Amino acid sequence: MNNLGVVYRNIQRADREAVERLSQFGSATVHEAMGRVGLMKPYLRPIYTGAKATGTAVTVLLQPGDNWMFHVAAEQIRPGDIVVAAVTADSTDGFFGDLLATSFRAQGAVGLVIDGGVRDVRDLTEMNFPVFSKAISAKGTVKATLGSVNIPVVCAGAQVNPGDVVVADDDGVVVVPAAIAGLVADAAQKRESHEAEKRDKLASGVLGLDMYKMREGLAAAGLKYFD
Amino acid sequence: MNNLGVVYRNIQRADREAVERLSQFGSATVHEAMGRVGLMKPYLRPIYTGAKATGTAVTVLLQPGDNWMFHVAAEQIRPGDIVVAAVTADSTDGFFGDLLATSFRAQGAVGLVIDGGVRDVRDLTEMNFPVFSKAISAKGTVKATLGSVNIPVVCAGAQVNPGDVVVADDDGVVVVPAAIAGLVADAAQKRESHEAEKRDKLASGVLGLDMYKMREGLAAAGLKYFD
Amino acid sequence: MNNLGVVYRNIQRADREAVERLSQFGSATVHEAMGRVGLMKPYLRPIYTGAKATGTAVTVLLQPGDNWMFHVAAEQIRPGDIVVAAVTADSTDGFFGDLLATSFRAQGAVGLVIDGGVRDVRDLTEMNFPVFSKAISAKGTVKATLGSVNIPVVCAGAQVNPGDVVVADDDGVVVVPAAIAGLVADAAQKRESHEAEKRDKLASGVLGLDMYKMREGLAAAGLKYFD
Amino acid sequence: MNNLGVVYRNIQRADREAVERLSQFGSATVHEAMGRVGLMKPYLRPIYTGAKATGTAVTVLLQPGDNWMFHVAAEQIRPGDIVVAAVTADSTDGFFGDLLATSFRAQGAVGLVIDGGVRDVRDLTEMNFPVFSKAISAKGTVKATLGSVNIPVVCAGAQVNPGDVVVADDDGVVVVPAAIAGLVADAAQKRESHEAEKRDKLASGVLGLDMYKMREGLAAAGLKYFD
Amino acid sequence: MNNLGVVYRNIQRADREAVERLSQFGSATVHEAMGRVGLMKPYLRPIYTGAKATGTAVTVLLQPGDNWMFHVAAEQIRPGDIVVAAVTADSTDGFFGDLLATSFRAQGAVGLVIDGGVRDVRDLTEMNFPVFSKAISAKGTVKATLGSVNIPVVCAGAQVNPGDVVVADDDGVVVVPAAIAGLVADAAQKRESHEAEKRDKLASGVLGLDMYKMREGLAAAGLKYFD
Amino acid sequence: MNNLGVVYRNIQRADREAVERLSQFGSATVHEAMGRVGLMKPYLRPIYTGAKATGTAVTVLLQPGDNWMFHVAAEQIRPGDIVVAAVTADSTDGFFGDLLATSFRAQGAVGLVIDGGVRDVRDLTEMNFPVFSKAISAKGTVKATLGSVNIPVVCAGAQVNPGDVVVADDDGVVVVPAAIAGLVADAAQKRESHEAEKRDKLASGVLGLDMYKMREGLAAAGLKYFD
Repeated sequence: MNNLGVVYRNIQRADREAVERLSQFGSATVHEAMGRVGLMKPYLRPIYTGAKATGTAVTVLLQPGDNWMFHVAAEQIRPGDIVVAAVTADSTDGFFGDLLATSFRAQGAVGLVIDGGVRDVRDLTEMNFPVFSKAISAKGTVKATLGSVNIPVVCAGAQVNPGDVVVADDDGVVVVPAAIAGLVADAAQKRESHEAEKRDKLASGVLGLDMYKMREGLAAAGLKYFD
Repeated sequence: MNNLGVVYRNIQRADREAVERLSQFGSATVHEAMGRVGLMKPYLRPIYTGAKATGTAVTVLLQPGDNWMFHVAAEQIRPGDIVVAAVTADSTDGFFGDLLATSFRAQGAVGLVIDGGVRDVRDLTEMNFPVFSKAISAKGTVKATLGSVNIPVVCAGAQVNPGDVVVADDDGVVVVPAAIAGLVADAAQKRESHEAEKRDKLASGVLGLDMYKMREGLAAAGLKYFD
Repeated sequence: MNNLGVVYRNIQRADREAVERLSQFGSATVHEAMGRVGLMKPYLRPIYTGAKATGTAVTVLLQPGDNWMFHVAAEQIRPGDIVVAAVTADSTDGFFGDLLATSFRAQGAVGLVIDGGVRDVRDLTEMNFPVFSKAISAKGTVKATLGSVNIPVVCAGAQVNPGDVVVADDDGVVVVPAAIAGLVADAAQKRESHEAEKRDKLASGVLGLDMYKMREGLAAAGLKYFD
Repeated sequence: MNNLGVVYRNIQRADREAVERLSQFGSATVHEAMGRVGLMKPYLRPIYTGAKATGTAVTVLLQPGDNWMFHVAAEQIRPGDIVVAAVTADSTDGFFGDLLATSFRAQGAVGLVIDGGVRDVRDLTEMNFPVFSKAISAKGTVKATLGSVNIPVVCAGAQVNPGDVVVADDDGVVVVPAAIAGLVADAAQKRESHEAEKRDKLASGVLGLDMYKMREGLAAAGLKYFD
Repeated sequence: MNNLGVVYRNIQRADREAVERLSQFGSATVHEAMGRVGLMKPYLRPIYTGAKATGTAVTVLLQPGDNWMFHVAAEQIRPGDIVVAAVTADSTDGFFGDLLATSFRAQGAVGLVIDGGVRDVRDLTEMNFPVFSKAISAKGTVKATLGSVNIPVVCAGAQVNPGDVVVADDDGVVVVPAAIAGLVADAAQKRESHEAEKRDKLASGVLGLDMYKMREGLAAAGLKYFD
Repeated sequence: MNNLGVVYRNIQRADREAVERLSQFGSATVHEAMGRVGLMKPYLRPIYTGAKATGTAVTVLLQPGDNWMFHVAAEQIRPGDIVVAAVTADSTDGFFGDLLATSFRAQGAVGLVIDGGVRDVRDLTEMNFPVFSKAISAKGTVKATLGSVNIPVVCAGAQVNPGDVVVADDDGVVVVPAAIAGLVADAAQKRESHEAEKRDKLASGVLGLDMYKMREGLAAAGLKYFD
């Protein structure tokens, strides 16, 4: 019954090739391809401009002000994973810093998404270790209370299951369920393929009103023009 | 009676020369020249360091989670305009991205101020298209409900009429009513002309207490010194 | 009885050598060395990436929307000081800009920490004058109501006495009481000396679980593994 | 050019009968009748349950932490007015208390809407003086800097002109431009007249899906049912 | 792949007797019995003091500013259900009012939990219809874009599956997965049974330090007493 | 050097008679009598309308999500004390409920001020135990990490020393240093004595402009009247 104090070692990660394909798209494109669901709250921000990471989720449930479980999680990381950390209550403490980043990277992690705070941001930036967090804080944490690793978590308003694909960049963090990773990659590709053409048209001065044929719908909705 | 679903095509833009002159000042200087009114809330931030834009306002009233009106607004843009977008309720969705920026620029827009969210920030930064927003979010929007274009709006706490001058930079976004744009430019110029001299004095070690002759006023107000 | 309208000229600054030593550590290290107390709230952020400052506090208590006391404070600055400004009520106004920065620097200040807003951030960045603030706002302030200089203040949730050491960088702002500055520097040094070794071990793939010998504690706390 | 330091004595108040009629509706009904515009931000809350007020706006622009202009405003109040106070920057100070409420009521005011804080809430509740505010705070204010009375203001995100009708209750605060007060009252009445009938139908178990004939539209939009 | 635009009619509701038993406990007790997981964010508040509701979840995913799906949800309500509404992006709009409450109650609903705003709070209070919301706002919503009914949702930071038990009162809102409802009721009962005895002891002056035998643990952790 | 893990048993409480006298005034009056300093942030709110408490502070420094120190604090409570709890980082957890309230009251406590969350608010209300908190949350806390009792703390932005007088009511929470409690009571009394007379004058229609003789000052500041 209790979801605290447990670690799941064998998780079903999304298909590697689908992850690879998804990594070529931005979070906005993937979010559209998903049908506009699966996005974390926009208060998560990259700790440095240009941070980008796509990987399979190793999930961690932390207690407020306590980062003990990060050490437990490190052992569960496989190359290509991204660590996704939820906290049982809102907390801006600095749960993560350059030592943990060094360890996570050594185990193969490609980044961290945390619904909490981090520190050592200058070092993390120099390491080019992408982190998406709610806060930056020098506040350290204790190692006293159990959380869990690789259970389903809610992180920044989005449900994340272990093994799901997480796409994170300057625009946000989106979660793609492992089972549909390939389908979403297809949809993203399709969506992207039309973008260049649209961009050229708009750049040449064609209006979206005409390109998307919106005038009729707007008139039907009752839009009125006045001079 | 209803302010929704209307587009005004002919708006009275501020005098071009006054806009040109105002564009040489920062938002803080213009705000002071205005008598310390007309400033938007400081939660609006540039999406990249160094973004700066001065233009005449084309206003848009959006519905939450709906960017239909941006396409209607595009047609009303004239060279030198800056688009100012209000939303009928708080929303952090990504109403605007690189395709709309391409279109707006093609029509002559110099930037965007939005009391909501934007996405594709990496592209927007590469395009050097200045955007001042409340949030960054990959969340897309629908095109289902009418708003309006070129009506008076309240954006981030400031009243903006179509054609007003908007000065936006790292310090904030200030609105100058079209009718007084020239006067405000005069006041800004006057204010600026004294700055260099003051800066030199202060740099040489002269205290503001003496330069601004504050000691008497402070004593009159009751300031007491203790050793 | 009244703490407003007073200026203390003679304050006991922390030992210069201890300040020098503390300036070599980041805020996270100093915060740990302090026993995890003395940290300001994480909403204080540097106005530019990489800002860093360590100095002895000259404290200022401002009134909301009023920066009069900054001019009074300028006269009390000695080389190596950092100005720490509290406000009697929450305010995001731009209390501080490039002219005051010029003056503060001329008097020897190494930076500013303010539980309020600042402006002219482009100029401040070019000056390389480190500022840690709650907000950026073009909003100017009046000079009408007395506050105080060099009294104990609460700034962003931390108690600061005049002369205390303030260490501010990308991770946050921490306050070290003057009386224990040397001891904290010792503790920080000790802490730092172990970091390089740990980092190497973790980078080589050793797990924190083993390096910190956590497995037994985790098992005792009841952690369960499942496959 | 300067909007600060001015008082307008003669303002055009909305038609008394229209105000009377509007006072019979709740803010939600009036907001709908307005076409869903004119609503202040929902962070404004009544200081006691059940507070309700409808009146013609006397507007005040305050400076942060300064309530001087409230005394100037008192003289401009006519029976049936509601005072609407904006502040030039965000402030939670207690600008208003039982003495000002006594004075305002003596001049005929029916309530206060303030984008800031108030105090003496127990007394105000006992007086049954309706106040809608952003905060409650014991923090007093100074009387040092000019604002204005009876100029157009932006209060909690809504534009308010002197003389406009303000309808405030537990659901929020809505502003009706004086010129359309009668029309809005008509629309509100029409809207209300259908409510009782709808309520009865819904209470009897009829679904909104059927009563509003939504099934076709939902199907057209693509809604799918699964068992 | 797409989670929008779908309605699931047959959901597995938690065992009725377990719901009945859980309804006798407060949210704090149930949260403890759950092992301290499953709690929604504390920004959800009852719209009136004393509101309390326990039921099986009918879930709704709304679009910001759009309450169309509430009408679709009404048809899926069975006696004893509580409606749980998530929104695809943060929104404080008034999605729900007295007409919908009338309809929901007619279908057997015992309350509403919504990660958004509601209106008509005076009517809802008089109806004694318990609502737990993020905001109160007179702002109405459109009916234009599809969401879903009875899919798993994240509401105020907690995962809710259709049929789960939701316990809501003045202290907060907690979600009990349907499968473990009986076990949680057992644990809550056990927990509760010790409370009266503890309360009596503490009331008589016995210290928690002694009753819980904490002194040794505190000493072991290093607690020091000074006179 | 370390402020964590310590308990001070002998604290110097403010003079009992001064506390008695201060208890007769509201927080707004005491705050004014203090010269407008010493006020906690207005986000602290009473958990029920009409809560009021005045007492001498027993201070507690808690860790986020951990209420162990409350049990240590209970032993240090003497009749007439009010417990003031700070947390080392922002936390909304429910640190306090009806069992602790029972214990605190048995030891003589008159209330609680906490820069965090509480639960069991219905029970606390029935007990008429006044609590002023930042949040209400069913979230329980662990007992794992040491904090301190009776050290100086910063609570909700105000410095509190053990033994200081705390005056809390619907308007806010103000801290009076023990050493000046008598003087502040004198100032409050003086201030209060003029209120009734002022109230009568204002109620009779006399304007504050005349009663406070403000017209001259306003004119000198440049106030202009227009018809």
